[in-house]
Amino acid sequence: MTEDIDQDLPDSDHEEAAYSLDRRTVAAILGAVEAGDRAQLTEWMEPLHPADIADLLEQISASDRRRLVQLYDREFDGDILSELDESIREEVIAALHPEILADAVRDLDSDDVVDLVEDMDAPQQAVILGALEDADRVAVQQALSYPEYSAGRLMQRETIAAPEHWTVGDAIDFMRNSTELPEQFYHVILVDPRMHPVGNVTLGKIMAAYRATPLRDLVEDMFQVIPATQDEADVAYAFNQYHLISAPVVDDEGRLVGVITIDDAMSVLDEEHEEDIMRLAGVHEESSLSDTIFEAAKGRALWLFVNLLTAILASLVIDMFAETINQMVALAVLMPIVASMGGNAGTQTMTVAVRALATRDLTAQNAMRVVVREMSVGALNGLVFGLLMALVAGFWFGVPMLAAVIGLAMLLTQISAALGGIVIPMFLDRMKIDPALASGPFVTTITDVVGFFAFLGLASWILL
Amino acid sequence: MTEDIDQDLPDSDHEEAAYSLDRRTVAAILGAVEAGDRAQLTEWMEPLHPADIADLLEQISASDRRRLVQLYDREFDGDILSELDESIREEVIAALHPEILADAVRDLDSDDVVDLVEDMDAPQQAVILGALEDADRVAVQQALSYPEYSAGRLMQRETIAAPEHWTVGDAIDFMRNSTELPEQFYHVILVDPRMHPVGNVTLGKIMAAYRATPLRDLVEDMFQVIPATQDEADVAYAFNQYHLISAPVVDDEGRLVGVITIDDAMSVLDEEHEEDIMRLAGVHEESSLSDTIFEAAKGRALWLFVNLLTAILASLVIDMFAETINQMVALAVLMPIVASMGGNAGTQTMTVAVRALATRDLTAQNAMRVVVREMSVGALNGLVFGLLMALVAGFWFGVPMLAAVIGLAMLLTQISAALGGIVIPMFLDRMKIDPALASGPFVTTITDVVGFFAFLGLASWILL
Repeated sequence: MTEDIDQDLPDSDHEEAAYSLDRRTVAAILGAVEAGDRAQLTEWMEPLHPADIADLLEQISASDRRRLVQLYDREFDGDILSELDESIREEVIAALHPEILADAVRDLDSDDVVDLVEDMDAPQQAVILGALEDADRVAVQQALSYPEYSAGRLMQRETIAAPEHWTVGDAIDFMRNSTELPEQFYHVILVDPRMHPVGNVTLGKIMAAYRATPLRDLVEDMFQVIPATQDEADVAYAFNQYHLISAPVVDDEGRLVGVITIDDAMSVLDEEHEEDIMRLAGVHEESSLSDTIFEAAKGRALWLFVNLLTAILASLVIDMFAETINQMVALAVLMPIVASMGGNAGTQTMTVAVRALATRDLTAQNAMRVVVREMSVGALNGLVFGLLMALVAGFWFGVPMLAAVIGLAMLLTQISAALGGIVIPMFLDRMKIDPALASGPFVTTITDVVGFFAFLGLASWILL
Repeated sequence: MTEDIDQDLPDSDHEEAAYSLDRRTVAAILGAVEAGDRAQLTEWMEPLHPADIADLLEQISASDRRRLVQLYDREFDGDILSELDESIREEVIAALHPEILADAVRDLDSDDVVDLVEDMDAPQQAVILGALEDADRVAVQQALSYPEYSAGRLMQRETIAAPEHWTVGDAIDFMRNSTELPEQFYHVILVDPRMHPVGNVTLGKIMAAYRATPLRDLVEDMFQVIPATQDEADVAYAFNQYHLISAPVVDDEGRLVGVITIDDAMSVLDEEHEEDIMRLAGVHEESSLSDTIFEAAKGRALWLFVNLLTAILASLVIDMFAETINQMVALAVLMPIVASMGGNAGTQTMTVAVRALATRDLTAQNAMRVVVREMSVGALNGLVFGLLMALVAGFWFGVPMLAAVIGLAMLLTQISAALGGIVIPMFLDRMKIDPALASGPFVTTITDVVGFFAFLGLASWILL
């Protein structure tokens, strides 16, 4: 019955996005929690995917969350923990009975356990690791020995490797006789005698071939080996760029140590996106809707503080021209327009640059051409909007020279916004600083300072 | 030899990002183009992946591009076209000899041809479709009958489906005897007699099982069927949320018509992200570094124009208080700080909201709680930075009441920025407008207008 309702709702209620949690299910679950009715709760939760249960837990209040977790109890699946936002994961772990937690964790793949424990404090980490069987614990500890955000942390250690001389029949027999195959695998990896990966054979090709076919005849054209120390963002880029499905991971000596599958790379790509978009807006990249008010305020305060400093800097520029403004108050009325247009153009160029750096579209190869292009774009839009604004200001205040001043100031500000917007991200990238993280305040400072300085400076020079 | 250089460079030149095109290779290729040396060109290009060749073509100048394409000639691979940015795809197609183009297109999978032709003008589309074999042309035309950006356009039509009663042996025999298996497939899809998909069996499980095992015993827990008319953004969300590798696509009657694989979903996720990040910055989402100056300027002009209007609106507010500013020029010096801090806080909240809507974390379920939370965050940071700025203004201008006015104005602006930043995206989403597209100008207008009005209004009321 629950499944029927699940499937009906996307049609019957067009206001909800596809795959978002259905309100009636949520209401029924919260009702069961309220009533303390474990059977009802389990019945409603049963058809939900762990990722959806995690979303549900993130969306309800902290007190409902605790009661739900405690009532759900033995049914609690380890995958829910993996899917949970870090900000409330600790809270949920604390609400779970230690035995349930141990069971939940034991069911997880070792790469999911790594993901779970890597950000924990040592004592909490010890609790989770203590719940694991010895072999799993060693696997997790080995993974943790790789740098954070590296391919070594992302990979699963279970691989299906085959010597180069094997046939399709050898591979099939090997797999049929294996007691424990990886949960997910899409390739048999051919390795040389030193365990260096030399090629991938997709399972589809093996399926379709006769037993006597040598595996090496079925090897894929595209084959990309990933160093275990490579940054996970680069791994995600490689999967997306080369349409990889799985790729072998090798140690410093080039020996096979694991495999990364595309679903993990897709998660990383999504996280990188989240990081970019949050950083560009000056929000702490790990913030989430389930943060407390204090955490959320703190996660935004740093950027607001930097913005305050740059805004004060811009105000100091205005202060230099206080006398000029005193003589013509129209300048105070118009000056925010120049700064605002500059800030906007700077943000546009900066975003294009940050994205192009992330996708490797902006390189040393085309850097000069892109800089010239951006400045030309700035000059062109500066001319168009400078002229437009000159007309507006001319009609508004009836002072032809004021119109000329704002038009010229707008042109200068647009060009410097473009220059700042492209050069600053490139410079930060060269300095190995994430351009998304730090470009904003620099670009805005430039556009504000140039905007006010150009407008008020030209005004005091030409008008007074 | 070329491969050696490729592999050495990432180590020897730490300034380049992993997987970015190696400068020496690019220089050698451009040298070969310059010299008109086809053999050299082919030798340097041979080890490159089509995606990298596409990036190369995007990064060089238009004249180099034309000469390279014409010199490379017969070696030109259809996949390069698929990987190319739309803005220069037409240019490259125009530079290709019609016969070469026809050959290149014939080698592509039908879903790649769909991707290639869907944005073309009718005459150019006819040229490409004319080059295809009949069966392929029909497949492409059928795909084009689905709405743009739908699962039907994204899917590949070739599937491996099996009746529910089949065993592992039946499936293997069927695949061995098939003349044309799909390029990529990861599941055998179990279907009922009406061709409705009922379950997925991964190839790995089939490999590891004995021939007599019924396929239905190996069915995956997670199984998600995608309607052909579903939006591709929702498809990408489902793949990421449920860790799908491939999913069957069904028509209105629930019959299997194709399959979508995770690599396509990953590309869509990446494109959706690009769209969000560009739209949030007010850049036309299809703009790229290879646009001409005029195209790029045009792609940013709309947003700049909207920003001009809102900036003029804010200036009208200032103009209302021209007399007040005339009496105390310090107001003109300080007012941009209030507006700038408001704009920043509004952008932060708006970005969090846009992202949370995209990830289905912000729903009707928790909307009220999130709005209250954001306003509390705004109030908290408003208090902190209002107090800080009051101190700065007090010391700067020595007028205690001015300090009180800016502190209070800052608090009000921060709260309304938070309110606007969360409510506007939610409202647009409810109206079926992409919140990333249109939130920016509205939020900035609110923060500017409220900022100037609160600061100057309070000043004229309290100070004068």
